[in-house]
Amino acid sequence: MNHTPQQICQALEEAYQYAAQWVGKGKMPDFIPALEHEDPRRISVCVTDLEGNTYTAGSYQGRFSLQSISKIILLEQALQDSGEEVVFSRVGVEPSGTSFNSVYRLELIEKVPANPLINPGAIASASCLTGRNKEEKYQKFRALAGELLNDPTVDYDPVVCDCEMKTGHRNRALASMMLHNGVYTGDPEEYLELYYRGCALRVTAAQVSYFGAVLAGDGLCPKTGRRLLSREHSELYRALMATCGMYNTTGRYAVQVGIPGKSGSGGGIVAAARGKMGLGVYGPELDGNGNSVCGMKALEYLSRALDLRSY
Amino acid sequence: MNHTPQQICQALEEAYQYAAQWVGKGKMPDFIPALEHEDPRRISVCVTDLEGNTYTAGSYQGRFSLQSISKIILLEQALQDSGEEVVFSRVGVEPSGTSFNSVYRLELIEKVPANPLINPGAIASASCLTGRNKEEKYQKFRALAGELLNDPTVDYDPVVCDCEMKTGHRNRALASMMLHNGVYTGDPEEYLELYYRGCALRVTAAQVSYFGAVLAGDGLCPKTGRRLLSREHSELYRALMATCGMYNTTGRYAVQVGIPGKSGSGGGIVAAARGKMGLGVYGPELDGNGNSVCGMKALEYLSRALDLRSY
Amino acid sequence: MNHTPQQICQALEEAYQYAAQWVGKGKMPDFIPALEHEDPRRISVCVTDLEGNTYTAGSYQGRFSLQSISKIILLEQALQDSGEEVVFSRVGVEPSGTSFNSVYRLELIEKVPANPLINPGAIASASCLTGRNKEEKYQKFRALAGELLNDPTVDYDPVVCDCEMKTGHRNRALASMMLHNGVYTGDPEEYLELYYRGCALRVTAAQVSYFGAVLAGDGLCPKTGRRLLSREHSELYRALMATCGMYNTTGRYAVQVGIPGKSGSGGGIVAAARGKMGLGVYGPELDGNGNSVCGMKALEYLSRALDLRSY
Amino acid sequence: MNHTPQQICQALEEAYQYAAQWVGKGKMPDFIPALEHEDPRRISVCVTDLEGNTYTAGSYQGRFSLQSISKIILLEQALQDSGEEVVFSRVGVEPSGTSFNSVYRLELIEKVPANPLINPGAIASASCLTGRNKEEKYQKFRALAGELLNDPTVDYDPVVCDCEMKTGHRNRALASMMLHNGVYTGDPEEYLELYYRGCALRVTAAQVSYFGAVLAGDGLCPKTGRRLLSREHSELYRALMATCGMYNTTGRYAVQVGIPGKSGSGGGIVAAARGKMGLGVYGPELDGNGNSVCGMKALEYLSRALDLRSY
Repeated sequence: MNHTPQQICQALEEAYQYAAQWVGKGKMPDFIPALEHEDPRRISVCVTDLEGNTYTAGSYQGRFSLQSISKIILLEQALQDSGEEVVFSRVGVEPSGTSFNSVYRLELIEKVPANPLINPGAIASASCLTGRNKEEKYQKFRALAGELLNDPTVDYDPVVCDCEMKTGHRNRALASMMLHNGVYTGDPEEYLELYYRGCALRVTAAQVSYFGAVLAGDGLCPKTGRRLLSREHSELYRALMATCGMYNTTGRYAVQVGIPGKSGSGGGIVAAARGKMGLGVYGPELDGNGNSVCGMKALEYLSRALDLRSY
Repeated sequence: MNHTPQQICQALEEAYQYAAQWVGKGKMPDFIPALEHEDPRRISVCVTDLEGNTYTAGSYQGRFSLQSISKIILLEQALQDSGEEVVFSRVGVEPSGTSFNSVYRLELIEKVPANPLINPGAIASASCLTGRNKEEKYQKFRALAGELLNDPTVDYDPVVCDCEMKTGHRNRALASMMLHNGVYTGDPEEYLELYYRGCALRVTAAQVSYFGAVLAGDGLCPKTGRRLLSREHSELYRALMATCGMYNTTGRYAVQVGIPGKSGSGGGIVAAARGKMGLGVYGPELDGNGNSVCGMKALEYLSRALDLRSY
Repeated sequence: MNHTPQQICQALEEAYQYAAQWVGKGKMPDFIPALEHEDPRRISVCVTDLEGNTYTAGSYQGRFSLQSISKIILLEQALQDSGEEVVFSRVGVEPSGTSFNSVYRLELIEKVPANPLINPGAIASASCLTGRNKEEKYQKFRALAGELLNDPTVDYDPVVCDCEMKTGHRNRALASMMLHNGVYTGDPEEYLELYYRGCALRVTAAQVSYFGAVLAGDGLCPKTGRRLLSREHSELYRALMATCGMYNTTGRYAVQVGIPGKSGSGGGIVAAARGKMGLGVYGPELDGNGNSVCGMKALEYLSRALDLRSY
Repeated sequence: MNHTPQQICQALEEAYQYAAQWVGKGKMPDFIPALEHEDPRRISVCVTDLEGNTYTAGSYQGRFSLQSISKIILLEQALQDSGEEVVFSRVGVEPSGTSFNSVYRLELIEKVPANPLINPGAIASASCLTGRNKEEKYQKFRALAGELLNDPTVDYDPVVCDCEMKTGHRNRALASMMLHNGVYTGDPEEYLELYYRGCALRVTAAQVSYFGAVLAGDGLCPKTGRRLLSREHSELYRALMATCGMYNTTGRYAVQVGIPGKSGSGGGIVAAARGKMGLGVYGPELDGNGNSVCGMKALEYLSRALDLRSY
């Protein structure tokens, strides 16, 4: 990491200004009424370096819904609870080439979801959590999320979760197809709820950048040096982010930004520049593929300005 | 680049020994009789650093068929001849989630191929070459390939090309579907032949590692510093390799190796560790997805030994 | 109808003997444990002519599960309750070319199910029933089934229904996809239960032949001449049976038998030779497509012997 | 056959008047420029009874392009030349649920085309013709068509055939996919040309009604009583017409008309009311599925007026 704090702060401020120009170019998410009324101008751009220093620009303290970024944490919990063999018998690690909620592949192409970053893959991860009941599973997952996001109080928004439970007909179809395919046994409604709770975690962009720094640092806590993730899992998650992280614009993002990243339809994006820093950006307006418009622009700017491109 | 020549040579030799253990674990390609009789023990492992030094292990001088690695060069020629706007109206930049020769997406999902590294995408690239006739187009492409592979005499093997022209029924189906979809006009047989000639280029692993170094060095000739590719195109190709480079094991490769790479069913693989070095490996036996078994193992070893992981 | 009772009785007896030769050639259904233990030799072959005379061969008095034959009755109830406009905005009338429980078409090809005789189509029919609650809807449907099957006491087997509710993951996926597609609103679990109750109706082959005679007679009760179905609906149901009635062997059945028919995976088949007679056959062993093996053979024999071919 | 000639003539005239009201409601075919300039008001409605009497209304003498109706004759030639075992190893007898030129099923669902009345099925039929060369095969087919259409001089329009050969990219894709799937070996261009020549046969509606009468009469020549088709083949063709004859409106046609029929995108339709009569109608304007708008209306009228419904 060769940048001075001044250089980082300046780049962040410029990235923020650059991204702010795209306010109004995306659409507020309509699938969760609770999220529709965020302020589209509330943009955050944050970086956490591998020494644990966090730099911010924009309104970094507001909370937003973690949504699909949680899929990485859910996968880590699944691996901790059930191990690689079980988990990767239920989900693959390949790009799907489809929308995040596509069903047809589970009928025509393959028995198990293509990867853990599409919806059926995350539901399959949820099926790997162990515990005496849903609550116990959730509390274990919540504790892990607290560590990885550096916020022991992190918790889910029940309004958002309930809303997604009620309207998630397509995810329910995916969950039933996987039960039919023998991906898992048990109660798909429980897996769906665990998945939706993870999606509904309320976080800040600074916390997301901290999580990015954990991934960028091969799993070590950037503040204490304590190991939070194994090196192998960190490599796995960065690989998945590089190849499947941005829904149907993963390729376009790879060209324009070139840092492993994972977006969430709550407006956040995490990115992990290996050996350099973690990035967390937020902007509520989404493009047609569910990615934050301003967040993508901020990352594009930072990638150039700080030479963060991984590939 | 912090490795001494001794470190590199030792790592190469170890990677070669490691890879050689997998001889017999793959299958000789059966789709081109001309390639079926290669010696499965003929493995090459080569590196070219950004100063233009090439290091080798194994039988590096034998030639093999470039096959799908040529798709990157064909795309560069397409971009040089017709520009981004035309090219990216005929092919996308997203992972397809399908086999390299899948047809169904062109009927059910999208009008144009998902990316330039699957067969229909490469045929679409070929349709963007300009010239008075097929021969002129080919000679221009051949000259470019000569530069990027550091071999002005590089040329295609007519036996291999003819064989693929005769048996490539599925590629012909793809070419006709694209004509139907309006991806291009003109003669698909010409596009197919240009594509197959590119596939049939005869190269060495050392040349492939040189090509990797061009990509790793953001487009500069590693020997002379002369610009061979624009920085933007180099980023584009590395991004495509990272997200779509290894057929249906792109994700698995990202996890295990983590360096943008492109395999060819001729047994070669090119990889480009940005700012560090290019890699070229060869081993004729393939896994079920068309990737060199020993080549993948060699890259996995080198990625660890030389800490080349990009993400 | 030019056959004497003697001719019909002889043909029935011969058809029964012919069909009995195929006992052991099919498989007992494994998807409903409650049905697995039927006696594979219990075969019934029945005919009801348009004067209301019923002729039987084999063990005609045993009851079996109506299963998919109920889809016709469910459609009639849907049309009575909600009218053509509503019903045919939720389901089409074309062959699907897929298995009865295929999901992919609802994602890739069309918003609404192809026809009312595949599972999603029948679930869509169930969504068109009106009533204050599930019980009221069911009682109305049960009364209609009683009329059309000439058995006012007809009712569903709760063991079979519960079993299908518990294991019908794929139907649940279909029901959720249709909710997602906007085919209907409301509670898919209710639609599924109504559908499964219809499937679980317990009937005899003689009753099924009576239902066939209603269809063959353009909707008139063969005993009393009272109109039970409109002429237009009778034509509709026969047309659907002719084009979509036998799952994935509708074409093969059209060639071999040539009388509009509808099979159920409970082992029954109804057929309607327009202006001639209704046929009801039963044999519990199924072919790979869910049709009664012996039932198909019996119909093939009767079609030839009594010259019943419609087309 | 209980209708007097007067009744038939009156019904024909009324059907013609009824159908004429729909002139302007369809679209002239745009895929063959040679056919675009037909007069949309030139409608023909013809019937041939099983004694060989032909009745006509409208401008019955004009010729039109047989198009897909030829698929039945091509299948008969295939069966005569190669036998059932070979033919039905290359094509099925089930509805496809897809457009006539769909490719995806050949990749995702099945190796061989679903039935002989969709384009890939007809191309597969063409691959079963035997002869020393294309010309000999064609002449044999032409002679058969001459017999079945009661016109020994029947021949193909080279302008129409060439045009379809040049623009038929999708059929070429289908032909290549089948070569890839191993449906047949040999030269797909020859199969395509034989197929297109059959499509380009120039016929009258009266001839088509004669062909319908052959099919309706279980294969006997309605004039001489000589056997032209086996009884089994007649049943097969009527069964295919009933289940797959009208492209993507086979089900709707079954409901509205209820007589086995086969339409061609040249504007003609053949229908065969078993034991009663053959029907041949023509009207150049097509609906969105490739069926003659006025032809469908004429058949609907005749089916009611003469009580011809088979099912």
